[in-house]
Amino acid sequence: MPLVVTGTVGIDTIHTPSANVEGVAGGSAAYFAAAASMLGPVRLVAAVGGDWPDEHRRVLTGFPNVCAKGLEVRPGSRTFAWGGRYFDNLNRRETLFTELGVLEEAPPPVPAEYADSRYVFLANTHPAVQRQLLAGFPNRALAVADTMDLWINVARKDLLALFEELDGVILNDEEATLLTEIPNAVSAARAIVEMGPNFVVVKKGEHGAVLVHSEGVATVPAFPAQLDRVVDPTGAGDTFAGGMMAHIAKSDRTDFETLQSALAWGTVMASHTIEAFGLDGIRAIDDGDLNTRLEEFRRAARIA
Amino acid sequence: MPLVVTGTVGIDTIHTPSANVEGVAGGSAAYFAAAASMLGPVRLVAAVGGDWPDEHRRVLTGFPNVCAKGLEVRPGSRTFAWGGRYFDNLNRRETLFTELGVLEEAPPPVPAEYADSRYVFLANTHPAVQRQLLAGFPNRALAVADTMDLWINVARKDLLALFEELDGVILNDEEATLLTEIPNAVSAARAIVEMGPNFVVVKKGEHGAVLVHSEGVATVPAFPAQLDRVVDPTGAGDTFAGGMMAHIAKSDRTDFETLQSALAWGTVMASHTIEAFGLDGIRAIDDGDLNTRLEEFRRAARIA
Repeated sequence: MPLVVTGTVGIDTIHTPSANVEGVAGGSAAYFAAAASMLGPVRLVAAVGGDWPDEHRRVLTGFPNVCAKGLEVRPGSRTFAWGGRYFDNLNRRETLFTELGVLEEAPPPVPAEYADSRYVFLANTHPAVQRQLLAGFPNRALAVADTMDLWINVARKDLLALFEELDGVILNDEEATLLTEIPNAVSAARAIVEMGPNFVVVKKGEHGAVLVHSEGVATVPAFPAQLDRVVDPTGAGDTFAGGMMAHIAKSDRTDFETLQSALAWGTVMASHTIEAFGLDGIRAIDDGDLNTRLEEFRRAARIA
Repeated sequence: MPLVVTGTVGIDTIHTPSANVEGVAGGSAAYFAAAASMLGPVRLVAAVGGDWPDEHRRVLTGFPNVCAKGLEVRPGSRTFAWGGRYFDNLNRRETLFTELGVLEEAPPPVPAEYADSRYVFLANTHPAVQRQLLAGFPNRALAVADTMDLWINVARKDLLALFEELDGVILNDEEATLLTEIPNAVSAARAIVEMGPNFVVVKKGEHGAVLVHSEGVATVPAFPAQLDRVVDPTGAGDTFAGGMMAHIAKSDRTDFETLQSALAWGTVMASHTIEAFGLDGIRAIDDGDLNTRLEEFRRAARIA
């Protein structure tokens, strides 16, 4: 069933201890769409400026299942740009710069032909914008949103208004604690469920993820990769969400068991993302790679 | 098959954000033995001083499967005592005081009747002492040791000599990184396996544990408890080891799959430990509690 993602398509500059890359394709919606496309079709709603490189378009539309009709190009505007630097252990990073560009303008319009979208993911952007975009999908079966520390700090009221309209929220452990002041993933997620959504997924990076749902709790470790396989963690969270939502859309089910399986698909997707810079990790996925890695993950995480 | 633990039996003082307890039964070997006794018989080798409270003896021997013939009382000596304070989120603690007492003296003798022990756990103490104790178990099928940051810092040579005689090492993530300078559990464990043991278990507290073994990697999340169920984390790691080793001894197998199952038993045991102060969490385990919680854990950690 149709899956759509709204969010940012941007130009990234990434410094890691081993290498630097400049001007690569990035943005929350781009990462999400690339990952989701590995499991099925995905529609993309985002805006870029006139400076958006042709090469980035080729990268993005090179993922056969990505529909980019909802990608608006604004010739007189600038594309969102982000630069970040990872520290030695690749777990922590600092933002070097953020150029909002089109993100300071009106959100992109949702194409009329996307109105039948059933599964909706609102990748990270201002919660008031996310809420506005959500209204473009009246036939949705499930709506999930990501957020970030900035909006928790400066737009909490908008965020809480958004939460009341969502089925699910996905955020990382630091954000969950910032939002609730509770330093425990399960307890924090439980408190967020009280704010409206039916479920909350807390991403814990190299420590996996937790799902707190009205029908139960699920927990998943990260794929047990060695550090020498981690090249660039950028987009791990967005591709986790992409794998998760694409599995849900493909299953066309929203029950607890489907969400639990979706955590594993998200984990496998993120494990590919971090093995190369930018979208290259997802691009490198071949037929059978995902099933092979899911099987490997099942073996490693099996409880007999 | 016979399981034995060597290590400390001590007197603990514990401060948490919610309460303080003074002079309760503790020590690595006591926690281990209490937990292991929930799955089968366990032999205890340790020394205490003349100040060891009768009440502590009653607590320890109140676990029906604990054999305390290897517990030596030294009337003229003092029992090991430890005091610690947990910070708000219960993930971090500081040591308030350590009184070594009997730990500064010769290690306890291994009773001759323990020489047929097949499964040996050397709970945390000086690695030269652990090595000396290990020699008391010539018929062992599997020997595993815990350690701590102190010995990594001040007795690395003894520790490496010990590792060469072990089948397995268990330590927490900070210790694994301290030992190897590698900030990733799987990579650090891999490096420790290169030092001699056949497998390494890295405990990650609320993030679960990882097993790196010559035959594969296994990863297990923590039991997804809410913060309001966490009363006192003291002994979580020792009881994790107790549940793990007792499952191995009960199975009388040392293959990868048995170790992987053992991680789950360790997790379940630790989840009980943290629900009350000192040994009270283990003491409160009733018939069926462990199987019920293991089933709950399996459901939460299932990858469909």
